[in-house]
Amino acid sequence: MNLKTIHFENNTLRIINQQLLPHKLEFCELKNLDDVISAITSLIIRGAPAIGIVAAYGLFIHARNLILNNSFSKELFLIDSKRLESCRPTAVNLSWAINMMTECTRSIADTDVELILEKLKDTALFIHNSDIQTCESIGNNGSALISDGDTVLTHCNAGSLATGGIGTALGIIYKAQDQNKKIHVFVDETRPVGQGARLTIWELQQNKVQSTLIADNMAASLMQKKQIQLIIVGADRISKNGDVANKIGTYSLAVLADYHKIPFYVAAPFSTFDIQIDSGSQIPIEMRASHEILEFWNIRNADIQVYNPAFDITPSDLITAIITERGIINKPISKNIFNYVN
Amino acid sequence: MNLKTIHFENNTLRIINQQLLPHKLEFCELKNLDDVISAITSLIIRGAPAIGIVAAYGLFIHARNLILNNSFSKELFLIDSKRLESCRPTAVNLSWAINMMTECTRSIADTDVELILEKLKDTALFIHNSDIQTCESIGNNGSALISDGDTVLTHCNAGSLATGGIGTALGIIYKAQDQNKKIHVFVDETRPVGQGARLTIWELQQNKVQSTLIADNMAASLMQKKQIQLIIVGADRISKNGDVANKIGTYSLAVLADYHKIPFYVAAPFSTFDIQIDSGSQIPIEMRASHEILEFWNIRNADIQVYNPAFDITPSDLITAIITERGIINKPISKNIFNYVN
Repeated sequence: MNLKTIHFENNTLRIINQQLLPHKLEFCELKNLDDVISAITSLIIRGAPAIGIVAAYGLFIHARNLILNNSFSKELFLIDSKRLESCRPTAVNLSWAINMMTECTRSIADTDVELILEKLKDTALFIHNSDIQTCESIGNNGSALISDGDTVLTHCNAGSLATGGIGTALGIIYKAQDQNKKIHVFVDETRPVGQGARLTIWELQQNKVQSTLIADNMAASLMQKKQIQLIIVGADRISKNGDVANKIGTYSLAVLADYHKIPFYVAAPFSTFDIQIDSGSQIPIEMRASHEILEFWNIRNADIQVYNPAFDITPSDLITAIITERGIINKPISKNIFNYVN
Repeated sequence: MNLKTIHFENNTLRIINQQLLPHKLEFCELKNLDDVISAITSLIIRGAPAIGIVAAYGLFIHARNLILNNSFSKELFLIDSKRLESCRPTAVNLSWAINMMTECTRSIADTDVELILEKLKDTALFIHNSDIQTCESIGNNGSALISDGDTVLTHCNAGSLATGGIGTALGIIYKAQDQNKKIHVFVDETRPVGQGARLTIWELQQNKVQSTLIADNMAASLMQKKQIQLIIVGADRISKNGDVANKIGTYSLAVLADYHKIPFYVAAPFSTFDIQIDSGSQIPIEMRASHEILEFWNIRNADIQVYNPAFDITPSDLITAIITERGIINKPISKNIFNYVN
């Protein structure tokens, strides 16, 4: 497991350009706030924890640029942070990380730029390093749920490409494989952006995990044939009652798992929990452009109406358990969640 | 409704090339048996009833070619028919039509080629004309199930592009619209081939039916939000107990409809029923090449394992009713089917 998505060295932020995968493994440098916003919006970087980490480093770089230009003020920094926060609304890790970054300078004077920079850098490094540890813990906790010979279904990409570490859903699979369990992973291609087809299959191959690609609409048929033992997905935001916002198609899998009596697990760090909101219905769902669906068919007909939500909400009663760095939250999730929060 | 997918005039068979839709509306002529096999295999023509009709005309053209070359024999004709039959295994309309074509010459001597040709042509025309009438009846029968203002979800293409007439699932929508019911159709893009994205959206626009394209994995989320009143799909083969083979993803929708208490209808002519087999588990499911999924992501990695079944099986207990030209088969479908067969 040598795959590292986010690199920060000598005040330079470099990330894998996930738009180019699996065709090219190429890094791009994010030199300013606009680069960071553009990378997040265009899905060069995606995955809730990874977005949080890149936003944190991005704000450090932005503060540094402002200071080098003698134009730094905490007020301006806060305004710019809000601009970054709004570029993807669903994953709460983005606002969580941004909040940590703006909070850490609260008690420091505007003029003490050296200390501000030091605090911002320390906080960004802390967010990144914590996520590496968190992924390890999620992986270890979740691996107990996988038996030798299991066939796992996953959706989207909740691996090292989506985090600072080994991933959440895929981290569990890597840990299980480290324990010499033989695992086969069925991967939903994950329309419309293809995080499964382009990223997860590639990442699993890098890590020598056996996998099979399917179109999203084939999952039910595999469950019907009893070819799936469990489902593990990541999350973009989890409300106080355990409802999960995750990549569009997740809710569908949860209903299908319920019907076929297959365990349905969500793997996520606590940075993805938003206990400020009571239920999933309050999570904002990002709507994306119609060309994301149409371009694959080379259709450029502006008259075609397209519905393209990037995420959906899975109610907690359809989730077998949420696997976190602090342990496994079992049913009833809405109640047990409080044993882990705070 | 002027869209006609299959044209037969002056012994010439011309069909819309559905590979080119929605970019180009172009017809291609099928001049011999190899053209017909290639058109069916490569999905230039698809849809269970349409395949049956094209196969019938194709066999007439093939017999005519053999006779013009002085090489016709009923034995050879039968062997060639088998080759045609094997090119797509799931839709029973193919073998049903081929069987009608070979049977109609049974009592005629090999040498009486004029009569053989006449019988073959009459049978092919009968198959085509019956299908036009059948679509009308299915449309009329099914339209009673649609209320003014309904939002309907459909999968794949079961319209005029899939039949000789106005279609099965879409025929119902056209008839309901003729009755001045306001209808909105959500269309699954239908990975991997995109019959929804490429064909159904185009066909609905030709017929001025309001529609919205979604990725297959978005259907559940719409059901959760109560934005779908009913689901109508076509069928490729229906077993004696009412199990339905249809485009991959159909079973998924049926389970989701069951969970959300949404009526799930199958529209199909009796030429799609195969009462020789007891249940869906005996229906052969065509597996298609991995490039059908991978090429959309420009992936040419031979090491990627892909699972690509073209169809799945929906057990009859998940189906609200089957809409046929003879009437609506309600639950219990496996029992009521016998009131319509024979």
